Amino acid sequence: MAASALQGEIEEQPSVLARMLEEQWPSVRRVANSIRAFAPEWIQIAARGSSDNAARYAQYLFGAYNRLAVGLAAPSLLTVYQSACRMGRALTIGVSQSGQSPDIVAVVTEARRQGGATLAITNDPNSPLARVSEHCIDLVAGRETAVAATKTYTNQLLALAMLSAALDDDDEAGARVRQLALVPDAVRAALAGCGLVNAGSRRFRGATRFLILARGFNYATACEIALKMKETSYVAAEPYSVADFLHGPIAMVDEGFPVLVVAPAGPGSIGIPVLLDLLELRRARVIALSDQPDILGRAELALPLPQGFPEWLSPIVAVVPGQVWARCLALANGQDPDRPRGLTKVTLTA
Amino acid sequence: MAASALQGEIEEQPSVLARMLEEQWPSVRRVANSIRAFAPEWIQIAARGSSDNAARYAQYLFGAYNRLAVGLAAPSLLTVYQSACRMGRALTIGVSQSGQSPDIVAVVTEARRQGGATLAITNDPNSPLARVSEHCIDLVAGRETAVAATKTYTNQLLALAMLSAALDDDDEAGARVRQLALVPDAVRAALAGCGLVNAGSRRFRGATRFLILARGFNYATACEIALKMKETSYVAAEPYSVADFLHGPIAMVDEGFPVLVVAPAGPGSIGIPVLLDLLELRRARVIALSDQPDILGRAELALPLPQGFPEWLSPIVAVVPGQVWARCLALANGQDPDRPRGLTKVTLTA
Repeated sequence: MAASALQGEIEEQPSVLARMLEEQWPSVRRVANSIRAFAPEWIQIAARGSSDNAARYAQYLFGAYNRLAVGLAAPSLLTVYQSACRMGRALTIGVSQSGQSPDIVAVVTEARRQGGATLAITNDPNSPLARVSEHCIDLVAGRETAVAATKTYTNQLLALAMLSAALDDDDEAGARVRQLALVPDAVRAALAGCGLVNAGSRRFRGATRFLILARGFNYATACEIALKMKETSYVAAEPYSVADFLHGPIAMVDEGFPVLVVAPAGPGSIGIPVLLDLLELRRARVIALSDQPDILGRAELALPLPQGFPEWLSPIVAVVPGQVWARCLALANGQDPDRPRGLTKVTLTA
Repeated sequence: MAASALQGEIEEQPSVLARMLEEQWPSVRRVANSIRAFAPEWIQIAARGSSDNAARYAQYLFGAYNRLAVGLAAPSLLTVYQSACRMGRALTIGVSQSGQSPDIVAVVTEARRQGGATLAITNDPNSPLARVSEHCIDLVAGRETAVAATKTYTNQLLALAMLSAALDDDDEAGARVRQLALVPDAVRAALAGCGLVNAGSRRFRGATRFLILARGFNYATACEIALKMKETSYVAAEPYSVADFLHGPIAMVDEGFPVLVVAPAGPGSIGIPVLLDLLELRRARVIALSDQPDILGRAELALPLPQGFPEWLSPIVAVVPGQVWARCLALANGQDPDRPRGLTKVTLTA
């Protein structure tokens, strides 16, 4: 038993991911068959916090493999402005660890009332969110006690990836389903590669501002690592897609500015070498999270990933060294990452 | 003629907004009639930078008044992953000051190829974006030379608001159209209320981190003010919807942390007094942008807005003191807000 709940839950991820794959395929396939029959025009996802980052992953996942555009719902339209958009031809997915947040429940309730397809992805199959949704995928992650979500986030990504593969008409040979089976071991390998993170994080002790950059599938990873850093270290860690970053925020990078570049191999990281040129010109301090030696070799701190893993699943693996990094940085700064000040596990926003 | 291009363009906004209202109603009504005949299931918007913040405004605007859900497109799905989502039943809007960005042009081109409705909102009606779109609304803002967009942003918001009113079946009496006519004078009044911003901004000289908070319609305003601050002062200014902020990032606020609260009157600001309680408990330094004396009175620095302006149009007005604030903060920090380091006016991302 790990001394820290957060550390224990980070290390538990390979087995929790494996449990999801062992237990939830029948449920995922049932949901996929029903969604296929419904034939949605598009997907909207209602989520907040880490679950919202899972929704960003879904945007690339269903866009790239299922030709379905994914929009992130603005729940306050319903709860603050009492205005219900048309969503009868959409698949509405509520993603929430606890399944409690009233605004997420309100969006899914309205979608179902309009005759849309509805799905809950939650760690509590008896939660309000699960009860109002037509379908539910249980995250089977076990109780999560650390305030900063880790294992429920990676299982949310896995649930979405399984659903995308099950919906994929081009995956009759099951290539994507077989790749999914590799996830737990890849996460185990990523954890094993975290030996230098603790010492490395100490070199960034006292830094109060960070940028976290990625593009495509791993934009979600950048957002989630930034959120973990903010929750545990209270640093200002701002995520950007590389493309948006070049449209303005690059102006704030000057000498010594720490920038974490998330760059698993794949089309999403094609622009990374040019980005590194620009960051070097401004003498930024680069932290690289990648499986590519060329990229890792240009960083002050290298967070290595297992090589040869498919990009569409890489967000499930790449976030893990980022969780470890956030935890180590909190400790280096004298914070207790298990007890973020002023946060509770379940936040109810209406 | 103002000495600074940025200052000149900020001050030009009342007349540029008035020009939009005088010249573009016929074009907006033509576009609205065509969209009404098409009857889209939903709207997707392709945009980057400031234009992306205009898209966030559109999410509340078309959601609250036209029952249309708005999703922000992920252009790199098409340009990086070569994957086209189904968008034949959507209205796809490309928003871009220059109309040049290849990824935005690519999304609109594909949407039109699939038979979807397409609209360009751009300051250059001869740009590639305007040429590939079925419809175009010209921003008629005149040449914008400052790198940080100001008058094209407020005219983008106005163009979207005019379109929403023109599409609104419940606005037969024209109440919303009449409210739109009040925008230029309200912006003029907001500018006139900026007398204390310069002195006030000097009190925040040297601060490197800011949070910018809002909810609902003015979440876009928070994002845009944060972007202006980053572009001109190089500070880490991070925007949050109040609801998302309470789900985690609140942990980073400690004594002396500067927080700008954007709170024009309306349902979006109902939670603001409770937020201010939490910020006071943590001894944050509060800057308030509001027309509500109760809220302004609790702030170290008050940025006043004209009272009695309808919330759905308030983002066009509220951003203006935020632009002035960003410019003054840059000057207080010894920066030249007209020449952000390393930025060019047109950024081409593929």
